[in-house]
Amino acid sequence: MCEATAYLLNKSGQEELYLADVDLIEPQDDGKLRLVSIYGEQKTLAGRIKSMSLVNHRVVLAED
Amino acid sequence: MCEATAYLLNKSGQEELYLADVDLIEPQDDGKLRLVSIYGEQKTLAGRIKSMSLVNHRVVLAED
Repeated sequence: MCEATAYLLNKSGQEELYLADVDLIEPQDDGKLRLVSIYGEQKTLAGRIKSMSLVNHRVVLAED
Repeated sequence: MCEATAYLLNKSGQEELYLADVDLIEPQDDGKLRLVSIYGEQKTLAGRIKSMSLVNHRVVLAED
């Protein structure tokens, strides 16, 4: 399976686990980012994708 | 490997192949989106991510 782990950059610039086993990433019309895991867990962030490596299964997010 | 295929929505709303075997997706400071394939092919789009399913290896992009 090719789900990824999403990390959120905190104010110190460190990556904290935000959501594991992410399948769907969908920017919303209101500017927020919706993530859904393969288990159906959903989280919505007022933030953006900072970088992503699919091969490394890593998504790094930053808050707006 | 977990690279994905990136499709670009055309003006008719249909998906056209934009870049295959995408590894890296990196929004740039100028608002553009940089994609890099596992073979090192790079493309930069004045656009945004519309949706993404990592399990299905699909990234759908839209032009700004």
